[in-house]
Parts: sequence; structure tokens; C-alpha cells
Amino acid sequence: MLCLAACELVGGHESTAMSFACALEMIHASSIILDDLPCMDDDSLRRGKPTNHKVFGEDSAVLASVALIGLAVKQTSSSPDVPPERVLRAVQVMMRAVGTEGLVAGQAEDLAGEGMSFEENEAALEHLEFIHIHKTASLLEAAAVVGAIMGGGSDEEIERLGKYARCVGLMFQVVDDVLDVTKSSEELGKTAGKDVMAGKLTYPKVMGVEKSREYAERLNREAREHLRGFDSDKAAPLLFLADYIVNRQN
Amino acid sequence: MLCLAACELVGGHESTAMSFACALEMIHASSIILDDLPCMDDDSLRRGKPTNHKVFGEDSAVLASVALIGLAVKQTSSSPDVPPERVLRAVQVMMRAVGTEGLVAGQAEDLAGEGMSFEENEAALEHLEFIHIHKTASLLEAAAVVGAIMGGGSDEEIERLGKYARCVGLMFQVVDDVLDVTKSSEELGKTAGKDVMAGKLTYPKVMGVEKSREYAERLNREAREHLRGFDSDKAAPLLFLADYIVNRQN
Repeated sequence: MLCLAACELVGGHESTAMSFACALEMIHASSIILDDLPCMDDDSLRRGKPTNHKVFGEDSAVLASVALIGLAVKQTSSSPDVPPERVLRAVQVMMRAVGTEGLVAGQAEDLAGEGMSFEENEAALEHLEFIHIHKTASLLEAAAVVGAIMGGGSDEEIERLGKYARCVGLMFQVVDDVLDVTKSSEELGKTAGKDVMAGKLTYPKVMGVEKSREYAERLNREAREHLRGFDSDKAAPLLFLADYIVNRQN
Repeated sequence: MLCLAACELVGGHESTAMSFACALEMIHASSIILDDLPCMDDDSLRRGKPTNHKVFGEDSAVLASVALIGLAVKQTSSSPDVPPERVLRAVQVMMRAVGTEGLVAGQAEDLAGEGMSFEENEAALEHLEFIHIHKTASLLEAAAVVGAIMGGGSDEEIERLGKYARCVGLMFQVVDDVLDVTKSSEELGKTAGKDVMAGKLTYPKVMGVEKSREYAERLNREAREHLRGFDSDKAAPLLFLADYIVNRQN
């Protein structure tokens, strides 16, 4: 949705970004399967259902995760009427969000930090931000950037949409952390209080629930700032998305 | 090496395929890390050294494997002086070899077949060929095809090089199976006799050691056939590679 809205915002037709919107969903699904593995977060519930490895076994889960990355790139070949240099650039951006500049970097830092204790809140916050910028924000950033590339946006437009999405991604995670300590598993559709039990660093732990909420609001304002000057009708879905994320209850 | 030689065979300079040659090595390394995981082949020795998860842990091994796929695609962006449609096509081919049409399909079939018993040799052979065409041959095929694409080969040249590499890939696996039952761990640099212990289907098991050797020879002749008509000087490295693989002792 972010990908398609970014494409439309820069004047493209959403159909030209559709293949990448699907591809990014595959990348996201791939990352979630890995995240839940016994050797990672060891989670048994996701979106209210048993996780992939619980149903299909660990081997199939790992293979499904890798297969989805391959399928994501395959998906992007069905992008007719778009110059190949644009498609190639978009593929590169999408795959950068997977590797050492994105999801993998975030997950590695996340695992490395388990059980680690930080004497200063500043160091803890830096660690947290690194994780979420890479683990969550990078994929949303890629979605917006890829949509803007496919839509034929200028470099400045592409950059601003990327910054907007980065704020939204980080905000998503701040809100997620707050929900984890304030809601039940039933309300969330996934195991609640898990971060606390695993001794994980979260925004509420570092800055308290109230300050975390304020931080989310600040990120929302910043995200909106990056969309200034764009056509307001076309920007509406992206502004709505940011509001929706900051106000979500599960 | 296959990638570069294919590039030169169709008249390109090997430097234009260098980024993809490196990318394919990353994809290969990625697949090997996954293959060796406890939930897959559970191997502790590879190329005479402890496997990735033995040294760095299972979580880091899985992340490294995924990171390498991302890095492989990133790598291909440094392909100057090649039209973007060619680079894009090559990226698509490379990534197809990773997913459900390649490595993942082969590994999934491999795992599904463990402990399975085949009443007829024909069914067993079909299962074996499926595994190795996807697990091994598909990556070699991709290397040759990608090299030929980057070198500016015609569709016919690209197709013939792909078929050559497919034969070589299959042959590699037949020879590998033969070595597994005829050599020691020390000679191989990896755990010998492992396939037999794991109850895995192998070529020697289905057709005997002697017939397996003959099959490898036949694949070698077929591979050479696909290179007919190409410049014989430029084809020499590829003919040498096929001979080397069929005659290797570890």
C-alpha cells in the first residue's frame, strides 16, 4: 500500500508499482518467518496463528523464507512499460533492505543485544534505534523509495518519500513496544509481554510508556513534514497511514 | 570461472561478468551455509573446516545466508558499460536459481525424500535427478547463462551455454556421489560416507558405482556437444572444466 501510494504521489499509475508492492510483501513474509524461528525469537504465535516452523517444521520454514526472496525478485520482472534501468534500480533498493544494510543487520544487532545491560539510557536508545531502523524502517523505506522510483519520481521526491517512510517505520516499532506492555495476547493476535519476558530492550523500558507515546507522536509530525509540498489529495493516503499506525490498538 | 568463461565465449570481456561471478559465489556460499544447518543436512565439516553454524551459531548462520543473497544482488550494481536491460535480465536469472525453480526446490525435495523407499529404480532416479538439477545444476546453469547474457550473447548461444552447464552440474553431483562411497573424509575434506549413513538416495545406490561412472562420462560428452561450433580456443576452459569435474578425486 505504501509502495503504491508513493508511486501515485510522484505522478505514476499505481499499476506500475504493483509487482514491487507484491515483491515487498514477500520479502516481509520472508523476514517474519526467519524472525520467529527457534534460533531467533522462538515465537509460536503470529497474527493469531501458529508460526510457519510450528506448522511446517524448521527446515521448510527456512527454505520458504529463502524461496520468498527469490520469488520477490522474479515478481519484479512483470513490470512492463517501465524502463529497465528504473526496474533494476528498484530491485537493488529492495534487496539492499534485505541484507547487511537492512533486515539482517537489524536482526543481528537484536540477537547480539539479548541479555545485554546498558548502564546509560543513551547507549540503550542508540542500540534500539539501530535495530528498528534496520529491522523495520528499512523495509518501509524501501517500499516508498521503490514506489517512487517506479512512478518516475525525481531524486528529491524519492529521498523525501524514503525519509517519510523511515519515520513511519520507526514509529511503528515504538507503538509496537508500547502495545506489547499495555495489551493482552488476545488483543494483539500475538504473544503479549514477550519482550519483557525475553529481557529485551524496548522503548517503554528505556524511556517509559508516556515518553514513548510522545516520541511516536513526534515521529508522526516529522513524517508529515517530509510530505509537505506534494499534492495534498495524493498525499492523503500516506498521511492517513501514519495516523493509523500511531493510533493503532493491535 | 564458468560465468567469466561463458562471457568470453560469446565475445564479451570477462570483466563485464565479474560482478556476477562474485555474486554467484555469494549465492553458492549462502546455499552451502543453509545446507549444513542442523535442521537440514546437519553437517559439521565443509571444505575441511567446521561449518558456519558450528563456529558462529545457528542464528548467525541463517542471517549470513540471507545477507549473502542481498549482497549478491548489491554486487551486480557495479556493472558499468552494460545496458541495464541486460543486467536486469541477469539478476532475474540468478535469483531464479535461488528460489522455487532452483536451490530451494532441490533442497526441499532432498529433505522430503529422506528415509523414503522407492520400489522402482526409475522413480528413484527421477527423484535424484530432480534434486540435483535444482540443487546443483541450476546454479551452474545460471552462472553460464548470466555470463553469456552479460557478454552480449545471442539467445541461441545463451541457451546452449545453459545446457552445457546443466550437464556439468549434474555430472558434478554424480561424481560427488561416487566419491562419497569410494574415498575417505581426509581425502574429501568433508565427512565421507555421510549419504549412506543418512540413508540418502545416491547414484551408486540406484545404478551402482560402475554405471554411475559411465553416466558421468555420458554427461561429459553431452556437455561438450553443446559447445560445438563455438570458437575452440575460447571454449577450451569450459571443456577443461568438464573434464576436470569428471576426473576429480576429491
